[in-house]
Amino acid sequence: MLLNVLMALTVIMITARVLGAIFARLHQPAVIGEVVGGILLGPSLLGRLWPEAAAVLFPAEAAPFLGVISQLGVILYMFLVGLELDLHVLRSRVAFTLAISIASIVVPFALGAGLATLLYETLSPAGVAFTSFALFLGVSMSITAFPVLARILGDRGLQRTAMGILALTCAAINDAVAWCLLAFVVSVTRATPGAAALTVALTAVYVALMLTVGRSVMATAVARLDSSPRIGEQSLALVLAAVLLSAVATEFIGIHAIFGAFLLGAIIPHESRIARHVTDRLADIVRVMFLPAFFAFTGLRTEIGLVRTVDDWLICGLIIAVATVGKLGGTALASRLAGLNWRDSAALGVLMNTRGLVELIVLNIGLDLGMITPRLFTMLVIMALVTTMMTSPILSALLKARPWAEP
Amino acid sequence: MLLNVLMALTVIMITARVLGAIFARLHQPAVIGEVVGGILLGPSLLGRLWPEAAAVLFPAEAAPFLGVISQLGVILYMFLVGLELDLHVLRSRVAFTLAISIASIVVPFALGAGLATLLYETLSPAGVAFTSFALFLGVSMSITAFPVLARILGDRGLQRTAMGILALTCAAINDAVAWCLLAFVVSVTRATPGAAALTVALTAVYVALMLTVGRSVMATAVARLDSSPRIGEQSLALVLAAVLLSAVATEFIGIHAIFGAFLLGAIIPHESRIARHVTDRLADIVRVMFLPAFFAFTGLRTEIGLVRTVDDWLICGLIIAVATVGKLGGTALASRLAGLNWRDSAALGVLMNTRGLVELIVLNIGLDLGMITPRLFTMLVIMALVTTMMTSPILSALLKARPWAEP
Repeated sequence: MLLNVLMALTVIMITARVLGAIFARLHQPAVIGEVVGGILLGPSLLGRLWPEAAAVLFPAEAAPFLGVISQLGVILYMFLVGLELDLHVLRSRVAFTLAISIASIVVPFALGAGLATLLYETLSPAGVAFTSFALFLGVSMSITAFPVLARILGDRGLQRTAMGILALTCAAINDAVAWCLLAFVVSVTRATPGAAALTVALTAVYVALMLTVGRSVMATAVARLDSSPRIGEQSLALVLAAVLLSAVATEFIGIHAIFGAFLLGAIIPHESRIARHVTDRLADIVRVMFLPAFFAFTGLRTEIGLVRTVDDWLICGLIIAVATVGKLGGTALASRLAGLNWRDSAALGVLMNTRGLVELIVLNIGLDLGMITPRLFTMLVIMALVTTMMTSPILSALLKARPWAEP
Repeated sequence: MLLNVLMALTVIMITARVLGAIFARLHQPAVIGEVVGGILLGPSLLGRLWPEAAAVLFPAEAAPFLGVISQLGVILYMFLVGLELDLHVLRSRVAFTLAISIASIVVPFALGAGLATLLYETLSPAGVAFTSFALFLGVSMSITAFPVLARILGDRGLQRTAMGILALTCAAINDAVAWCLLAFVVSVTRATPGAAALTVALTAVYVALMLTVGRSVMATAVARLDSSPRIGEQSLALVLAAVLLSAVATEFIGIHAIFGAFLLGAIIPHESRIARHVTDRLADIVRVMFLPAFFAFTGLRTEIGLVRTVDDWLICGLIIAVATVGKLGGTALASRLAGLNWRDSAALGVLMNTRGLVELIVLNIGLDLGMITPRLFTMLVIMALVTTMMTSPILSALLKARPWAEP
């Protein structure tokens, strides 16, 4: 078993690196290459071309281990995403920013829920209520991948331009709201109506507690740790224990462990020494070892072969169109109405349309809870990849003539 | 399942921290506290006092996951130990140092193998050949925990004194030789005589290749990486992939994955920027999250209750006595014969008697391969703890009057 897990991890890490490097050459985010690498290792390519190798590398018995490692990775990753979150940037033009970011959620959410009426018949698993299905499709359309967006802006040196900050702020708000929505959907789906109400109530209490008591406890603790001469093992241990506790708490409440990890990251002061230290210590190993395991785990569940007929591909195209119209279109329209010019509005829309790996986390939760079929899962994975891969080239085209400049 | 693993990890991490802090207060290495913490979470205490909590925290189904996480941790840890290894210190007085370190292996090994004649009847599992049993007991007596020893010296600021360097060098040689011995024992035990010969031959070829070709490839690769302006994710990924590949190779040959990881660490130039970077990125997370999982995993398999009768405790005492006489006595005698005074010889012996967590890794391998019974496993775990805990107080007493000084 150890040999299997080690071999699988080795192949996964190397594949992720190679594909990541290739995609970076093609001016795409490396992370998309890593996701594609995971898909290639699954039944879509390796399992189809060379089933013997797939059986040796990823035997059915090893899958649960890969699952736990990738879950652990995603928990740590979402904690880091929360840690990166800086709602302080929301200092000026609050109404303006909030309007755009709410539009960037509501429009794709509504369109996604509308799309559910079309897909419910053919693509929902037996026994899933329409409400759950529609809510989940809505959420899956309204995700923006804050970290991938931040990376794209950073790679182009745009993260300090006015538009870059606006995009980051909208994405951060989007992230926070989308995770609350997902928590709500999960609680509704997992439980009977009465229990769902309890879960929602408990979630609200937990979030409120974390944002008030948790936040001030964290501020005090962080200030103390920051002033200690040596930030080391002990601080990392404390923070990690807090992350795991919060993850256990939310899993226990009935929403997902990831939510607790994200929330804990969000209440730690973003600019503290301890936040930087923990990011420093965790980010690389999470990105290099844990996330590729998650991509491979996702890839093992993604079977492009399930999207077979012309009709299937038409539906897939429709999903991509609805996601893009909702997110890109909704954001752009709201921005234009709020007073930005068309070019900047479109660029903002394109950026918000980046779904990246956060979308994959959401889709895996949906598949785990039986809210979507493996076929719809595959279509939505394709949608996530296509919408994320659009961003870089369209952004380049839009900003070619007159790039955004720092103020 | 995720909830179980998360809860277990949380409790494990917190217990390790608390016990580590308590032991540090008692002037003992924190790592011994963490090991004791793991034992307390197992059937020796928690399982006995509060079996319901033990069943919730560590259900039988979650054990394999904890096992894989701790194996992964031990692999990364032994890689870091290899990375710390610096055989360059063996520049002067080669014969002198070699003589002492060989004595510090041969004497306890011989005594351990001799002890096997006494214990074979009662404490060897059915079907284990005497040779395997005796070899394994020999190896388990001759381990020195290089990392714990380095930590004890570092905590006292002794690592740059002549005696400190001598102790570190002897421990490093001891480590390398002991792991080769263990690889040999494992290959002999796992396979039929013909296959064992093949495993030994393959191991020899692999080690030779790594020390020649591998070493020069590494030197070139490291020099290239070191001269690149930015050492980042990519370098960590390369090194980790190499570690996993080497671990897979040795596991495949039929010795343990840990051996390959250790060997790979050993051939990477110790003082390179990349070595420091990788240590920086990995050491904390390995110590904070992965190693405690290993201690808990060990603790779950350690049942102090199995050492029940007076006879059992007498045997346990005998094992501790033999281990100490062999290691402490053997080293001290050799040092005295080589020309050191009695006080320094004794101090060196005490230091080499530190068995720490490296011993636990060896014992787990023995238990996994069925070379020792759970009862003997428990006795040897107690021996590892007692011999390691002796070190600090005896060293303090010996060096009190006239501490070692830097040259």
